[in-house]
Amino acid sequence: MSKIRAIVYGVGSTGQDLAEYMLHNGVEIVGAIDADEDKVGRDLGEIIGFDRELGVEVRDDPEAVFDDTRADIATVAIATPLKSVAPHLERCARHGVNAITSSEEALYPWTTAPELASKLDRVAQDNEVTITGAGYQDIFWVNLVTMLTGASLEIDTIRGLGRFNLDDYGPVLAEHYYAGERLEDVQAEIDAGDAPPSFFRMNIESQIAALGVSLTSVTQDIEPVVAETDVESDALGRTIPEGDVVGVRFVVEASTDHGIDFVGEEVAKVYEPGETDINEWTIEGTPEIHVRNEDTPTAIGTSTQIVNRIPDILQADPGYVTVDELPAPRYRPLSLENYVE
Amino acid sequence: MSKIRAIVYGVGSTGQDLAEYMLHNGVEIVGAIDADEDKVGRDLGEIIGFDRELGVEVRDDPEAVFDDTRADIATVAIATPLKSVAPHLERCARHGVNAITSSEEALYPWTTAPELASKLDRVAQDNEVTITGAGYQDIFWVNLVTMLTGASLEIDTIRGLGRFNLDDYGPVLAEHYYAGERLEDVQAEIDAGDAPPSFFRMNIESQIAALGVSLTSVTQDIEPVVAETDVESDALGRTIPEGDVVGVRFVVEASTDHGIDFVGEEVAKVYEPGETDINEWTIEGTPEIHVRNEDTPTAIGTSTQIVNRIPDILQADPGYVTVDELPAPRYRPLSLENYVE
Repeated sequence: MSKIRAIVYGVGSTGQDLAEYMLHNGVEIVGAIDADEDKVGRDLGEIIGFDRELGVEVRDDPEAVFDDTRADIATVAIATPLKSVAPHLERCARHGVNAITSSEEALYPWTTAPELASKLDRVAQDNEVTITGAGYQDIFWVNLVTMLTGASLEIDTIRGLGRFNLDDYGPVLAEHYYAGERLEDVQAEIDAGDAPPSFFRMNIESQIAALGVSLTSVTQDIEPVVAETDVESDALGRTIPEGDVVGVRFVVEASTDHGIDFVGEEVAKVYEPGETDINEWTIEGTPEIHVRNEDTPTAIGTSTQIVNRIPDILQADPGYVTVDELPAPRYRPLSLENYVE
Repeated sequence: MSKIRAIVYGVGSTGQDLAEYMLHNGVEIVGAIDADEDKVGRDLGEIIGFDRELGVEVRDDPEAVFDDTRADIATVAIATPLKSVAPHLERCARHGVNAITSSEEALYPWTTAPELASKLDRVAQDNEVTITGAGYQDIFWVNLVTMLTGASLEIDTIRGLGRFNLDDYGPVLAEHYYAGERLEDVQAEIDAGDAPPSFFRMNIESQIAALGVSLTSVTQDIEPVVAETDVESDALGRTIPEGDVVGVRFVVEASTDHGIDFVGEEVAKVYEPGETDINEWTIEGTPEIHVRNEDTPTAIGTSTQIVNRIPDILQADPGYVTVDELPAPRYRPLSLENYVE
């Protein structure tokens, strides 16, 4: 038995939560990587508001951090699109370090970025490590839903509704979903076909993989959500004026070869006062199954779920492994504290 | 690839549902066992209202049914206490047939009936088959809850509230929970310490096993629930008069060596008009997690979940295997139709 040794790769909002929760669970942090000049050179403990220095300096030279440490896993929290995070995941693998990332597209990239996913899969297998995308969606948007289908005799349509606060994840994610931009600019980008893919597309494709059926078609609609009054944004550090964009609403529809359809509506926006997170699913069929999580812990849950997944990643087969292929998520304090290789 | 061959062991209310759902999913039924003289000698297809005869006669000699068939699995739906169902589970094992039972105590019998569980475990291992207790509780009262803990940083108390209609499961279960008895008789039996264990005790102990912590104490309170007006009971085939017992309310409290406590309230009663099933859980801690299933499919879900579990049982290690040790439940039509041994 030994402590799990982790590198915090990306020390933004999510990376700081991940560091805090790993320390809480007895994981040893051996390295920290970030390009932000306000963080480079400082002790990670100070940045996350820990009660003591950790002796881990944030460095902007990732190769040097990997060369100087012997880590079991890296938590990679840098960006949403797989293409932005792929070089970092590949670096982890080349150094023989498992990687778990909060990149949303990484949850299930086999249809949105198949070549990149295949390349990462090969590099991970060659180096006998595992690469996985996880986060809030792991339980609440994938595995909770597929588990409930275990009570189904027949499924017609799986319908999901999710809403979360873009203001909880720092500026990178908020800007990714157009928060703070002008409506006409966003609409032009959407009309040009440059809109980002919806989380829900990856969620639904992961569910489809879990059920062992095959996707036959998928469509995605996106529309900007506009501020109804001036909205304060912590993530952007400024006020979004009435009429500008606070986020987006996606509707994803997918069909499969087994007659099971999926309709997912996702709202990602900077909240106005009184709005709370929503997670609601209905499995239409025999029987009809409803599940609702009230005021879901989306922000904290992103990082707690990644930390609880670490023992699963360390025991998974090498390659690019998606959450639908892992064991059921569980609270893992004992496995995190006392890891048996 | 071949069809899964099943014996329907117990052709009561749940056994008939199981037969119907297995046929729906392409499982081949090769035998049917029941002691009820109204059923013995009749074709199973006729009893379950199937559109044709199945060529499967219900027989009251279980040894002969096992001798005359070559089954992969038996669905055992006979009684709630493990001691009533154990001889039947043992018979399945001796004949080299895997068994899945709806017996509530069978869900997690290691503390309420440890000697019986150990004996069944040995017989199953000796015969290289698996014995499992499952049903509605598999997802909604065990695995759904333990999955949600995968979003926990710290857990203080897991609270559950469940209610289901005793009238949906035939007379055996209704009578087991005192439906139709007189209040003073039920109270005397409870005072004498002869009350049945709560479902929720087994559920909670299965959750504890899933989390890898250990039970340190468990208590159970039971009180009769009395009819507020005359209540029609389909299961009993008569009216329960106002003032007589329609079921029970259990409160189970458990503690573990890891500081995680459990409080479960379970109401099992013959419903009065307007009452619906309830399944609600709160994981108190960091973060607080709520989940609610509205109008849960308790009755149909008992049998659909058992049928969807069949591929997991066929692939599980030999022995007495509880649902917390199995993979996450899922809809399994493809695995049921085209089983690859």
